Amino acid sequence: MNMTLAEETTLLTRQELLARLKDVGARRYHHQHPFHLRMHRGELTRGQLQAWTLNRYYYQSRIPIKDSLILAKSDDPAFRRAWRKRILDHDGDQDGYGGVEKWIQLAQASGVSREQVVPCTRVLPGVRYAVDAYLALVRDHSLLIAVASSLTELFSRDLISLRMDQLKLHYPFLTPGLAYFEGRLTQAPEDAEFALDYVSTHAKTRAEQEQVIGALEAKCAILWAQLDAIDYAYVTPGNTPPDAFVPDCE
Amino acid sequence: MNMTLAEETTLLTRQELLARLKDVGARRYHHQHPFHLRMHRGELTRGQLQAWTLNRYYYQSRIPIKDSLILAKSDDPAFRRAWRKRILDHDGDQDGYGGVEKWIQLAQASGVSREQVVPCTRVLPGVRYAVDAYLALVRDHSLLIAVASSLTELFSRDLISLRMDQLKLHYPFLTPGLAYFEGRLTQAPEDAEFALDYVSTHAKTRAEQEQVIGALEAKCAILWAQLDAIDYAYVTPGNTPPDAFVPDCE
Repeated sequence: MNMTLAEETTLLTRQELLARLKDVGARRYHHQHPFHLRMHRGELTRGQLQAWTLNRYYYQSRIPIKDSLILAKSDDPAFRRAWRKRILDHDGDQDGYGGVEKWIQLAQASGVSREQVVPCTRVLPGVRYAVDAYLALVRDHSLLIAVASSLTELFSRDLISLRMDQLKLHYPFLTPGLAYFEGRLTQAPEDAEFALDYVSTHAKTRAEQEQVIGALEAKCAILWAQLDAIDYAYVTPGNTPPDAFVPDCE
Repeated sequence: MNMTLAEETTLLTRQELLARLKDVGARRYHHQHPFHLRMHRGELTRGQLQAWTLNRYYYQSRIPIKDSLILAKSDDPAFRRAWRKRILDHDGDQDGYGGVEKWIQLAQASGVSREQVVPCTRVLPGVRYAVDAYLALVRDHSLLIAVASSLTELFSRDLISLRMDQLKLHYPFLTPGLAYFEGRLTQAPEDAEFALDYVSTHAKTRAEQEQVIGALEAKCAILWAQLDAIDYAYVTPGNTPPDAFVPDCE
């Protein structure tokens, strides 16, 4: 994590902290990644979308594991009750599918089967290492840093909203698989508000505030690197690494 | 790790195990990576070589840490005495520079300074995650798997020998920085022979032999993914991620 300003001692106001976090998002969130830009311009092939849904499933499938690691860090039942919602959102319950299942539906809409997606055997190593780095970040650092790493959700609503429009427009075959994004439109802002309130209250020194900002930067890099790996492997012929998923169409 | 054949129970002979390991190398070792192929054809720019030396320094700098984790796994003084050589090879002693210092000299020959290289602040996230995955592989698994993950050295002599010829030919400005590879020409085969003897002796079941093969596959993927990240970021304009190193020339 970047701790360039850790020597500063003046506590940021809540508004100043939020401004710093938004600045991180403007510069580093993956809405600006070349692969997303091409996706939203309608330039991806169906095969490239298959590679995206199959690889990103590894990230999606690790979210409730990441949230379980966060639950295990807290000794506060009220915090755990609030955070538990995220595991339910992804794992579902008797009333409906969770986000992990909905992502499988998106993968199926792109043309890859449940059997190809769920075992994660053909995930790009670069995607796997990035997601595992997220689990390590959460596991090996404080609850404050772990919560702060979720703050990318501050920026996800705008990206998901744009993405839904562009996917429907350019890749209509994906339309039956968009329930995941539909759900995240309301879940992500709720989650982001809770996490922002948490870090604003619990970062009590400037050094802790800088840890919060550094955790958001680290998480942005983790999201970005996943798209680097996908873009590298599935755009230029010859770049797909040994044993990685190969789409069944262009 | 790929454990596809773990259900087999027939113990492989020493020759059969070596043949399986060589087959992994033929298909997955990074001598076949597109970035290396272009390097050896003389197609890389000086800036791309700078990006390679700076990013790969993160891997080089973690080798003695990886070997220290392996030392800490063994309760056998004879094993530790033998393995300790690797730390000396990379960290050096009063009689000479080690491999880490020699890699800095290679980076300097490419045109990046010690101050740019050593802090690792501009290393690509994708390279960092891959190298950290190597440390996790060694830290979180058995001594047998940790030793087996070093078996890529079975294949490194041929690659280094070819690389030295091609670097001198196509990029003569690197010639003063090739001492690292010179040293590895003799160190790597010695180390590989020791590790091969160790895994041949200590993998006493077919399942353990498959773990050895899986560890080599996992290590090959870790080396390959580092080059994926470098190739992605420094070949196509616009792909360099936020805050990554930017070469000072084409």
